[in-house]
Amino acid sequence: MSTRTKVAVVGAGPAGLTVANLLNHSGIDCVLLEERSRTHIEQRPRAGFIEEWAVRALDEHGLADRLLRTAGTQTFSEFRFDGARHFFRYGDLSGHRHFVYPQQELVTDLVATYVDDGGGDARFEVADVRLHDLDTDAPAVTYTDRDGREQRVDCDFVAGCDGAQGVSRKHMPPDAVVARHDYGIGWLALLAEAPPSADGVLFGVHPRGFAAHMARSDRVTRFYLQCPPGDTEDSWPDERVWRELQARLAVPGGEITEGELIEKRVLDMHNYVVEPMSHGRLHLAGEAAHLVAPIAAKGMNLALHDALLLADAFGAHYRGDDAKLDGYSDTCLSRVWQYQEFSQWLSDVFHSSTQDPPSDPFRARLAQARLRRLLGSEATATALAEVYIGKRADF
Amino acid sequence: MSTRTKVAVVGAGPAGLTVANLLNHSGIDCVLLEERSRTHIEQRPRAGFIEEWAVRALDEHGLADRLLRTAGTQTFSEFRFDGARHFFRYGDLSGHRHFVYPQQELVTDLVATYVDDGGGDARFEVADVRLHDLDTDAPAVTYTDRDGREQRVDCDFVAGCDGAQGVSRKHMPPDAVVARHDYGIGWLALLAEAPPSADGVLFGVHPRGFAAHMARSDRVTRFYLQCPPGDTEDSWPDERVWRELQARLAVPGGEITEGELIEKRVLDMHNYVVEPMSHGRLHLAGEAAHLVAPIAAKGMNLALHDALLLADAFGAHYRGDDAKLDGYSDTCLSRVWQYQEFSQWLSDVFHSSTQDPPSDPFRARLAQARLRRLLGSEATATALAEVYIGKRADF
Repeated sequence: MSTRTKVAVVGAGPAGLTVANLLNHSGIDCVLLEERSRTHIEQRPRAGFIEEWAVRALDEHGLADRLLRTAGTQTFSEFRFDGARHFFRYGDLSGHRHFVYPQQELVTDLVATYVDDGGGDARFEVADVRLHDLDTDAPAVTYTDRDGREQRVDCDFVAGCDGAQGVSRKHMPPDAVVARHDYGIGWLALLAEAPPSADGVLFGVHPRGFAAHMARSDRVTRFYLQCPPGDTEDSWPDERVWRELQARLAVPGGEITEGELIEKRVLDMHNYVVEPMSHGRLHLAGEAAHLVAPIAAKGMNLALHDALLLADAFGAHYRGDDAKLDGYSDTCLSRVWQYQEFSQWLSDVFHSSTQDPPSDPFRARLAQARLRRLLGSEATATALAEVYIGKRADF
Repeated sequence: MSTRTKVAVVGAGPAGLTVANLLNHSGIDCVLLEERSRTHIEQRPRAGFIEEWAVRALDEHGLADRLLRTAGTQTFSEFRFDGARHFFRYGDLSGHRHFVYPQQELVTDLVATYVDDGGGDARFEVADVRLHDLDTDAPAVTYTDRDGREQRVDCDFVAGCDGAQGVSRKHMPPDAVVARHDYGIGWLALLAEAPPSADGVLFGVHPRGFAAHMARSDRVTRFYLQCPPGDTEDSWPDERVWRELQARLAVPGGEITEGELIEKRVLDMHNYVVEPMSHGRLHLAGEAAHLVAPIAAKGMNLALHDALLLADAFGAHYRGDDAKLDGYSDTCLSRVWQYQEFSQWLSDVFHSSTQDPPSDPFRARLAQARLRRLLGSEATATALAEVYIGKRADF
């Protein structure tokens, strides 16, 4: 069977769902394809911090009602080291804040708005997705539907929003630059059925390794533990997890509340960026184009940034103006690289002195000097608050 | 022959001369020892930019009369890349400026004030300097004087101000941490009899390699050219030097004025820091304790910072208070590490994208993102101005 549409959106994560919603709302025909089931993506825990500018932008398109009604907000984070608490009050410094809203809640909202409220065409549980004729004016996407039937979507554009493991990335030409950085460490990502232990994100800089704490909801908290890159979940029985979290994060007056661990997986910490993000009629958005390790909660925010720009550029195209589509990649990448740079800067602070004695004392001292300046210099804190909350990134 | 003094100051660079002047002015007996001749040190070109706080501090002790009368000042630097000029107006952002005063001029002034005006005890052209009994209350320095006679100076303290090649560093105990960083590149350091080509420092970020321009006086300019680490001066005939300087630094509306090259040497770019800077009765100051590659004009400023603190701490000691001497190393090192960190940050900007295509595209893009933020974000520029001019470094 064959369908004709304007934009085929591949992947129903935050990027693809945002593109699909905005197109649908503008009356631009689109088809959204997703390999997983609707139930699966509505329950899959991932990120949880959305920067204020992104929430405002979603709200302008009517996509943030439940978020604004139910999400908590945060305006500071806390560095813990040498047994003491040190606050980075980026909200006061920037005038902006984070909204704490689990990614699966946002996905649930975006699916409901697109499918249930907007009557959008979403096709879940598709398999063997293939992209065709991307360098012509008549590209197409083929796939096998959940009943095993071959399907074809002819379109004007493909929005490649299918993430790090998707097919879209593989269609970029060989001369696209894939810039990659490996941290050479692992992070054990954990979800605990435990209320947050603090009102802000906790960054534990500790000789035993870095650890972090981030609220997800009143009842669920994400934790991270730096670990050797080859570790598996089996190396981390619950008892060891809590022992390390307590050692690296708890300080006098700052206890860590324990609970049942409902997710445990080792992340191979790395980043990549595909440049340019466009090839012929294919435009990438989100992790199909760039991955940033979850050091500064940037991944979902970049996905939303891409999606907002891409939908806007498609809209302009159908009004006869291709400038935004032509500039799409460059506009996305300026924020991508600012966020990558900030994540790298913060990673150096987190990971350079986590041995005692440190393997590279020069690097460890530089990291400590950075952290002292962030905490001691208002000018430095103000500059970093700007990029942490994404107030501006147009440079 | 034997002399008895309170402080033996080893080395007559900016650090040693400042310590000796301040002690002499306070009526604290000292002897200043220097391996080179007075004429040699008064003519040896090295650094040339002094941060305003250091000039003010020298002036409070009557050591900046000629400097304040004759030195030029600078309040901005200029990044040149992609054929265009980009200004970093750190003076406006910080309220402070650099004084342009060649190191040998400052040394000349400090020698004159100490020896000619103050009647201080300075012994030039000494050889075979040795330090003794540093972990006792009665240390001593022995040396051979210029007439070949063995001499001994018994003292309470030794101020080790004899630089990277001096003997003082070698007396630090094995458990002192020497943190070291090699940049893996060379800089060809040049002095040209040519007037400065711009009113500010020029940083040329170029695919052929980094280049820099810094005024020394109305008639003399320092230039730097990034080169392979193993290069010798022989690889750099004058014609090649100017061709590269023009290629990397000149832009439309920003020409480079040529002149006779009067110095040409390859610097092996590296940093080190000795921690702690004190051992028994020996206290290091300046490059005996820490070397910072000349990326941000920090070396002489750190030497002056150490010297001011050390002389003040000796003064307190003789008034019965040892707290400053006990805290000397930590107080120095906080500024040392802030400046090392800034120099590293700037080095990444200068050296990460100097290949086309860059060997590490991720690193190159991060460096470009940093530079864009420095030039595009007032908050970031303000934070970096603070550390570039050394307005504060007490974190």
